[in-house]
Amino acid sequence: MSGEYGEIGALLGQDRKGYSLPQKLYVGEQAFAFDTQVMLPSVWLYACTVAHIKKPGDWFLFEMADNSVIVLRGRDGAVRAFFNSCQHRGARICEAQRGSSPKLICPYHQWTYNLDGSLLGARNMGPEFDKSTINLTPVAVENIGGLIFICLTDTPPPIDRVKADIAAQIAVYDLEHCKIAVQDDLIEDANWKLVMENNRECYHCDANHPELISCLGNSGFGKGLPEDGNAEASAEAHLLAKRGEWAALGIDHDLVEFPDGWWHRIARLPLVDGAVSQTMDGKVASTKLIGPFETPETSSLSIWTQPNSWHHFCCDHVVTFSLTPLAADKTLLRTSWLVHEDAIEGVDYDPANLSAVWRATNGQDGYLAALNHRGIRTDGYRQGPYAPEEKLVENFKEFYVAQSRAALDGVAT
Amino acid sequence: MSGEYGEIGALLGQDRKGYSLPQKLYVGEQAFAFDTQVMLPSVWLYACTVAHIKKPGDWFLFEMADNSVIVLRGRDGAVRAFFNSCQHRGARICEAQRGSSPKLICPYHQWTYNLDGSLLGARNMGPEFDKSTINLTPVAVENIGGLIFICLTDTPPPIDRVKADIAAQIAVYDLEHCKIAVQDDLIEDANWKLVMENNRECYHCDANHPELISCLGNSGFGKGLPEDGNAEASAEAHLLAKRGEWAALGIDHDLVEFPDGWWHRIARLPLVDGAVSQTMDGKVASTKLIGPFETPETSSLSIWTQPNSWHHFCCDHVVTFSLTPLAADKTLLRTSWLVHEDAIEGVDYDPANLSAVWRATNGQDGYLAALNHRGIRTDGYRQGPYAPEEKLVENFKEFYVAQSRAALDGVAT
Amino acid sequence: MSGEYGEIGALLGQDRKGYSLPQKLYVGEQAFAFDTQVMLPSVWLYACTVAHIKKPGDWFLFEMADNSVIVLRGRDGAVRAFFNSCQHRGARICEAQRGSSPKLICPYHQWTYNLDGSLLGARNMGPEFDKSTINLTPVAVENIGGLIFICLTDTPPPIDRVKADIAAQIAVYDLEHCKIAVQDDLIEDANWKLVMENNRECYHCDANHPELISCLGNSGFGKGLPEDGNAEASAEAHLLAKRGEWAALGIDHDLVEFPDGWWHRIARLPLVDGAVSQTMDGKVASTKLIGPFETPETSSLSIWTQPNSWHHFCCDHVVTFSLTPLAADKTLLRTSWLVHEDAIEGVDYDPANLSAVWRATNGQDGYLAALNHRGIRTDGYRQGPYAPEEKLVENFKEFYVAQSRAALDGVAT
Repeated sequence: MSGEYGEIGALLGQDRKGYSLPQKLYVGEQAFAFDTQVMLPSVWLYACTVAHIKKPGDWFLFEMADNSVIVLRGRDGAVRAFFNSCQHRGARICEAQRGSSPKLICPYHQWTYNLDGSLLGARNMGPEFDKSTINLTPVAVENIGGLIFICLTDTPPPIDRVKADIAAQIAVYDLEHCKIAVQDDLIEDANWKLVMENNRECYHCDANHPELISCLGNSGFGKGLPEDGNAEASAEAHLLAKRGEWAALGIDHDLVEFPDGWWHRIARLPLVDGAVSQTMDGKVASTKLIGPFETPETSSLSIWTQPNSWHHFCCDHVVTFSLTPLAADKTLLRTSWLVHEDAIEGVDYDPANLSAVWRATNGQDGYLAALNHRGIRTDGYRQGPYAPEEKLVENFKEFYVAQSRAALDGVAT
Repeated sequence: MSGEYGEIGALLGQDRKGYSLPQKLYVGEQAFAFDTQVMLPSVWLYACTVAHIKKPGDWFLFEMADNSVIVLRGRDGAVRAFFNSCQHRGARICEAQRGSSPKLICPYHQWTYNLDGSLLGARNMGPEFDKSTINLTPVAVENIGGLIFICLTDTPPPIDRVKADIAAQIAVYDLEHCKIAVQDDLIEDANWKLVMENNRECYHCDANHPELISCLGNSGFGKGLPEDGNAEASAEAHLLAKRGEWAALGIDHDLVEFPDGWWHRIARLPLVDGAVSQTMDGKVASTKLIGPFETPETSSLSIWTQPNSWHHFCCDHVVTFSLTPLAADKTLLRTSWLVHEDAIEGVDYDPANLSAVWRATNGQDGYLAALNHRGIRTDGYRQGPYAPEEKLVENFKEFYVAQSRAALDGVAT
Repeated sequence: MSGEYGEIGALLGQDRKGYSLPQKLYVGEQAFAFDTQVMLPSVWLYACTVAHIKKPGDWFLFEMADNSVIVLRGRDGAVRAFFNSCQHRGARICEAQRGSSPKLICPYHQWTYNLDGSLLGARNMGPEFDKSTINLTPVAVENIGGLIFICLTDTPPPIDRVKADIAAQIAVYDLEHCKIAVQDDLIEDANWKLVMENNRECYHCDANHPELISCLGNSGFGKGLPEDGNAEASAEAHLLAKRGEWAALGIDHDLVEFPDGWWHRIARLPLVDGAVSQTMDGKVASTKLIGPFETPETSSLSIWTQPNSWHHFCCDHVVTFSLTPLAADKTLLRTSWLVHEDAIEGVDYDPANLSAVWRATNGQDGYLAALNHRGIRTDGYRQGPYAPEEKLVENFKEFYVAQSRAALDGVAT
């Protein structure tokens, strides 16, 4: 193993506080193999929401590099996850990106599994075959208020603090009663870490994201309160007033920012004046509000997790992003827009309007991330300094370096 | 070399009797390099039939990964083979998949070779150049009753037993007087060993191959006699009656099944009741019967060889399959349908009807092999148990492991 | 590093005088990595002409494998070069192949650089940020009579003899007053060294290049005088007469042929009788002659440099070729046709006519180079003997081997 990831340790050693990573950690093939085979399997990854698998038998594939995981809803309503590989000769069981079936049947030789992964039947295996010893290989899974996280290792790290903090704030959005209205799968020509870094700062927003700026104004994503310590006093006063409104609705919480080294951040942010949703015109995208909201509300709740997700909750819809590496320079960004399960397409919401802001923003970010990747490949790349507005980029980078060091130690021993 | 194939020995050591191979032997890049550079060059490979190169000067390319071999018919009618690389500066000499020419002329600088590989002419090479010292690099070749096998190493293993057994049974089909009616080149998205394993069992047939089942019934390819030791007594009686008919025609032989560790299997199998050919309706595909057959005959002769071929001989046509690895997850399956050389397209046979059963079957198998490959790539893959009906899969696997160990030893010394 | 390029030393050791290189130096992945990361960065590479960047702020990208270099014209008219990577987080600054802008602005976060590479501005970087310490990473550059060469290492080798010899002969063509009329970017499916070797001999011309032969006759590119020592006496007499004409025009020089181990060759060659330009009909392609020529002139000046360029200068146009490796089996051949800056398209010249000879020749050479590459990949490849007409191929090969050995030593220490 030391040979396979021989240069990773030295590269991690070149990390500089306040600066971007060494070149080969972003663009090298060995780093990609390390990330997808060692580092990312050692942490919790965001997969999808419960709205992606509403009914028993519904399944949804989470796929990263060589791996494919079936995330499904059991007969008991619980969420479970299994590697997508038959225990007979290894065939992929679920072929499509999502589907629904009362049992999982391998298309090759029809070995049949229950939704809890146990082998129900295998034809003509002979008298000595004991089907009770065979199960689909399970994958650790956690359902946090409707956000589903998985971990590919047999020994997942703790998740309790993340679970408690997130569950406390998103319960109000009642994801079990939402449905997927739109899903966009965008493949960006950039390393997954660059797609993450791009998400973690709005230093690039003014010049690149007119649609996003129009609904977030200057108070969003590191550009203002509560996360910008440099914000002006007037903005602070504005936020204070807002928090009074939120408290009345029971949705006011202090900023949660990677507490005690944990890997989650939660912030409620005011929308731009007059806006009640992350839409082009600031109006609700779905007239059927979600959760307990009876009238539109002027903030959105945002959750960011390391290493691969972010989510925004408005009173009328939720938008959730998962990111998975496909190759050293290819990353899948999956964006799902959720509305109330009773909202009717064409009546209560228009999918194009619902997805307009983030579809535009994703396209712009994909272009920037590809430029970033290609530029880093040149010999002229130097580890460069993060701006103060890029502190969450650095936070991601530090998480990556720390987890990578720990995971590398695990491989070496 | 030990570094280049460093993990192969350990992987071969993880082989378990009765179980599929370790993951990386199927899907790893190092295993692909080992297979195409070491293991497969150490054994005999099926290339094509004499019907692919009927006349002197006819040539046909066998291509595997980086290699390209010209198989040709000499002026003396003998079959010869050479690497497709000019001895001047290495250019590919034959570009198309097949062709015919009285001499081999390199398109780059027109160095010209005789059909026996000797250099006939090279312009302006100066007074000290001795063309008699230069020949195309030869490749070992054997013509076994019209099936052409090649071996890429300078020290080919014995082939005499294979030659004797196959020649004895296929002479009757007189391949020298057949022609190629249809050739399909299908690239499957799977490792070559998975394409082979798929061929070696019919455990997957019932649910996946309606066309094949319609002409083979339950007595074909491991689903019945003679190779299924569990067949019922009635089937045995049926076969006994059949063998009487075959004896009268002079085509009855005992099953040949990888005798003494050799790499060939030969079985004559009854077709489904009423059928006389491997066609959708069971009728002959070509009204011009081949060999000595004057009236349609109700069986087919099948030959399987390790590591890359299988063949079916009916009274009216022959279908022959060669398999060559192109990449770790890409395999070329080449299927050729042969009919009597005097059969006239559109009169004696319809190419679409001739190829219908196996064209459909190949497509289905390609889908399954790709599912198999992708599923094996996940971390959830486990070496799984072969069913009794998969004993020929295991036979292939054991051949692969034994030859790989021997070839690896050869590299190490 | 020794592991990364571990097999290169041994392969270089297999070089044979008078024979082509060992297989893996042409087609291996390790050799590609070595060439693009070590060998080619250790030497001067031809990038483009001053006509590609006529005005201050004009820039042109030179891209090779992972590298991207901005070659630009400064406010002072001087040519400069920088790696195409922002010093903030590494984004690619110039995206298109060419363009013009008064400053270089990174599209990601709008860091802005002067045309001399110094950082002009960076928003919100905090009080401790000192922009004066930051510059685009410079690349060594030389403008030799309008031909621009770059070197990717910090310690470029000497270039003075090349500069003196080339400048003396091409000044007359006055590239500063030329413009680009046509640019062809052709990606050939061959290793860059095979594209180079193809350029260095005309042993393949008779059978493959009818258009080129029609304008060069038998006196061009190693097929006749001055470089063919075997030329007949009549040809020598013909050349002597021609040199008299050239002397009268002040353009006669002795052949310069890789003097003292340098990496340039310069020859003035007569065109075929009656021809005054490298065109299909031998007539001028542009009626606006370049430099001092008032009437068409019957020769062309050719310059070849190791390891990646060749150029032909006629009285009415210039054609210049740069070659850059993209992958082990992909090479970009960029051909630019220059005419006088005052020549008007459609009036003074027709782009299709201007580019016809070399566009046809490039296509033919691309086909041959791909055949060469594929043939070398087979196990039947043997290092083959160069013909006497291929002495310049050998010269290239010897340059490659010598530079590679030196560069490999540099990596090892």
